[in-house]
Amino acid sequence: MEKKPWSNWRHITKLDPDKPLSREDILRVAESGTDAIMISGTQNVTMEKVNRLVSVLRDCQIPKIIEPSGPGHVTYNGIDYVFVPSVINARDTTWVTGKHVQWIKNSVIEWEKVVSEAYLILNPNSAVGRITRSKTNLSMEEILAYATLADRYFKFPIFYIEYSGTYGNSDVVKAVKGNLKNSTLFYGGGITDGEKAREMSSHADTIIVGNLLYEQGVEKLKETIDAIR
Amino acid sequence: MEKKPWSNWRHITKLDPDKPLSREDILRVAESGTDAIMISGTQNVTMEKVNRLVSVLRDCQIPKIIEPSGPGHVTYNGIDYVFVPSVINARDTTWVTGKHVQWIKNSVIEWEKVVSEAYLILNPNSAVGRITRSKTNLSMEEILAYATLADRYFKFPIFYIEYSGTYGNSDVVKAVKGNLKNSTLFYGGGITDGEKAREMSSHADTIIVGNLLYEQGVEKLKETIDAIR
Repeated sequence: MEKKPWSNWRHITKLDPDKPLSREDILRVAESGTDAIMISGTQNVTMEKVNRLVSVLRDCQIPKIIEPSGPGHVTYNGIDYVFVPSVINARDTTWVTGKHVQWIKNSVIEWEKVVSEAYLILNPNSAVGRITRSKTNLSMEEILAYATLADRYFKFPIFYIEYSGTYGNSDVVKAVKGNLKNSTLFYGGGITDGEKAREMSSHADTIIVGNLLYEQGVEKLKETIDAIR
Repeated sequence: MEKKPWSNWRHITKLDPDKPLSREDILRVAESGTDAIMISGTQNVTMEKVNRLVSVLRDCQIPKIIEPSGPGHVTYNGIDYVFVPSVINARDTTWVTGKHVQWIKNSVIEWEKVVSEAYLILNPNSAVGRITRSKTNLSMEEILAYATLADRYFKFPIFYIEYSGTYGNSDVVKAVKGNLKNSTLFYGGGITDGEKAREMSSHADTIIVGNLLYEQGVEKLKETIDAIR
């Protein structure tokens, strides 16, 4: 199997188009040592807010990803990848196949930039957990079954464990990593310091840090990067 | 991409474990010239009924596939492939991911035999249409979007248009074929004579014939094979 660039990334910073961040801070994130910037939000995302981030980052060399929350929030200009999630434990097919069909029907897609992600949402109280009505009350066995389904049946290039806003169970992340044959394992949720970054990074291929930047600033974000180098 | 054996098959005969067929007729199907036998049913399937077919076919050289309707109906012994469907236009995630998770959780899977199929169900009145509550009232544009989703986003090796029991719209099959980049196109439903076999076979990579065998016998099945050679 061809080696994908993102499989070498250890740390991604998520920028939420709906949260305020100064131009200077955006540029500092791009220079922070994080491996890629993912533009991604769950609520109140508009193309105008997405375009502002893309525009500020235009001249930065760092890989730039859009991870759309809906069919209307995709752009390709100035963007290296579009990571498109399918929520593998959603109760409602809207988040597995439904929005995807609307997106395909209504736009011209640059497929060479598109990467499919299987999301496993494990925090029922997060915005994304509530919106997708995900089955989060899962045994370890069921979590591993979802991971195998994504990895061996659907062959998703990326399996993303999302604890969104809370710090997850590192035993779960470790067990999932041991179960995956091909998918790259992303972990996101509650990484608020270097120690947590180091712990999750010891199991997942890639950790995603987002809220911390908005809550504690770029210097604290850097702590999570330094901790895993 | 590696060339898959099933991408050369033009004609598959579906045997329903729940429908009566004599040992002699089963063996005549195996010698009929059909490219493969798929053991597949929607209702009242039991492991005992599946095993009877597998047992009768044991010494036949023809490729044998199981296409399970549920997690409990899989066997690997004497079987070349297990084609596992995901109903891409189902309203209920049970038929997209749900049964699959149960299957993975409760069994030891021979993954090297497993092939993933995206089913698009287009007959709302069929057993499979009712059970999966599929969205069958689709415009051509939506059908093509589902095909692209299966082909480019999920990268299913097989895209299966299932009109189950009724003869489909050959313009739909033709348009879908024109839209697929990688998936092999299967067509099933209402092939009751050589002319219909020829028409659908001129668009789909592979046609699947099932009911005809039970309604009109092996000789009539052979007509659909001869028609496409």
